[in-house]
Amino acid sequence: MSKFDEIMKRSGYSRATVSRVINRSPHVSDEARRIITEIMNELDYIPNRNAVSLSTGQTKQIGIVTAMIDELSLTFINQFMDTAMDYGFQTIVYMSRSDKQIELQAFEDLRSKRVDGLLIVTCVNDPGELKTYLQYGPMVSWQRMGNDEIPSIAMDQAQGYRLALEHLVSKGYTRIANVFGRSNSLNTKSRREAYETFMTSQGLPVWREAYQYSVFTSSDGETALRRMANGGELPQAVLCSNDYAAIGIMSEARRHNIHVPDQLAIVGFDDIELSRVLELTTIHNPIAEQAKQAFYHLWRVLGNEEHKATSLAYRLIERATT
Amino acid sequence: MSKFDEIMKRSGYSRATVSRVINRSPHVSDEARRIITEIMNELDYIPNRNAVSLSTGQTKQIGIVTAMIDELSLTFINQFMDTAMDYGFQTIVYMSRSDKQIELQAFEDLRSKRVDGLLIVTCVNDPGELKTYLQYGPMVSWQRMGNDEIPSIAMDQAQGYRLALEHLVSKGYTRIANVFGRSNSLNTKSRREAYETFMTSQGLPVWREAYQYSVFTSSDGETALRRMANGGELPQAVLCSNDYAAIGIMSEARRHNIHVPDQLAIVGFDDIELSRVLELTTIHNPIAEQAKQAFYHLWRVLGNEEHKATSLAYRLIERATT
Repeated sequence: MSKFDEIMKRSGYSRATVSRVINRSPHVSDEARRIITEIMNELDYIPNRNAVSLSTGQTKQIGIVTAMIDELSLTFINQFMDTAMDYGFQTIVYMSRSDKQIELQAFEDLRSKRVDGLLIVTCVNDPGELKTYLQYGPMVSWQRMGNDEIPSIAMDQAQGYRLALEHLVSKGYTRIANVFGRSNSLNTKSRREAYETFMTSQGLPVWREAYQYSVFTSSDGETALRRMANGGELPQAVLCSNDYAAIGIMSEARRHNIHVPDQLAIVGFDDIELSRVLELTTIHNPIAEQAKQAFYHLWRVLGNEEHKATSLAYRLIERATT
Repeated sequence: MSKFDEIMKRSGYSRATVSRVINRSPHVSDEARRIITEIMNELDYIPNRNAVSLSTGQTKQIGIVTAMIDELSLTFINQFMDTAMDYGFQTIVYMSRSDKQIELQAFEDLRSKRVDGLLIVTCVNDPGELKTYLQYGPMVSWQRMGNDEIPSIAMDQAQGYRLALEHLVSKGYTRIANVFGRSNSLNTKSRREAYETFMTSQGLPVWREAYQYSVFTSSDGETALRRMANGGELPQAVLCSNDYAAIGIMSEARRHNIHVPDQLAIVGFDDIELSRVLELTTIHNPIAEQAKQAFYHLWRVLGNEEHKATSLAYRLIERATT
């Protein structure tokens, strides 16, 4: 008698129920799960995961591809994992540390059906090449992809940036410095264009000399402020790549006896918990909602019902720094 | 001819070299890797990972078990992943969301040799049960385990806590409040004992009424400060579960016009980047070094050379809040 049959016999449950417990389906009573799991342990039964996969056609695993994890992507990944788990999926994180070969492992695992689908948080391989893997399973990206064949739930950051610019100009700040992240990213490009277009439309000067790049962390923010303070004319306001950079700028401004917001207004981006605690004006970024949408996309392509798409938007959160 | 043989024939490389490329060994020239990878792609060759594992005896995968990921464990996990990658290992994160069954999947994957070893960041199953899996492969834990059979690289937080207490008392603060994390964790127990023992040894009163628990985030810190401010006698100093809590307390104190450190001294724990930016006195926690030690432990038990163990210690970092 196979161990599987032995479990059926000893537990008195049907093949379907035993199979559901082995497959970790949520549609089993706690009682059945407890009894069957106990017998599995007694028999030292190790389900062959691949055999299980063949019977259901799915591994119930989703791969998460990312070059690295920082605080912001952590928020996104945590919410994605939570949602996936609510739907019975486990997740595997493939962190490539920007190594193209290691990143490709995730895509190869999609091809060999080790995972049912992929979430791309950030990737370093050319999207044009990665999209060939779409034939093996669904993918969805948080990163903007620059081609529309790999679906992306990225939002256009220009929209949020414009909210910040409108807010600053309406409060009378017109000499605005920009502190960006990666100089060649689509997001930076989009933000820079939003700034230049908006200023021009208002008949205000575009201040390209004040652009700073690669400002990611609070330490980077401190350095950015020192550059502004040493650079002659201080801006009236600074628009930041994210809240961490803004917190660094705010703290360093205090040490330079620059009064915020009278001498320098600061606007962050993302609206992390600390931005409320530290009273930073910022742009609310609906990160958790984007993570849910990313999962719903994979869920639908895997053959399940469609979730009603909710339209997401950035919001200005005015606090003490403007 | 098998695809493997076809790759050998077309590339002109030996079985060993082709095998190394398939196994992602670093000991291959870039040229060989490029040529062999190209031919693999032409032939649409998907290596059977399990077959690969049988030939090398290792999967070169390490599982990371954690209930959740927060900023602090992220620092630890990122460093562990970096070190593992330096040694040719990939990592899989099993996030259980405190579900015992899902957590066990990682241990079952150790049993079925899908991973070579496990790093336990936090776990919810009973360590006494988990240790039975040690027969299948090495494990190491960051969490304190309460038994010495699963090796743990956890440090005794009492040591760091005592540094903070000595510092506060030497500066004349004697009415000290404690803001803890999980009320039933070994770390909280250890910190509480350190406080009570130290105060008693100094002939100073032990202030149990001022204990607060479950203070993890900066929002929790704000609430903790409000409780202190509304609780009658304000402490002279507060010792915090971590830097985030301390930042919340510091910010909320400012809103209550409580001057830091004259009316309230604050000491954090861990020394995250923001604690320097925000000038918080704190205890430096050598998290990255612990992550390296955790990997070195697995590395050694997997049959490799031993790394010289460096002894790690907490350090007091005095800044503006004491």
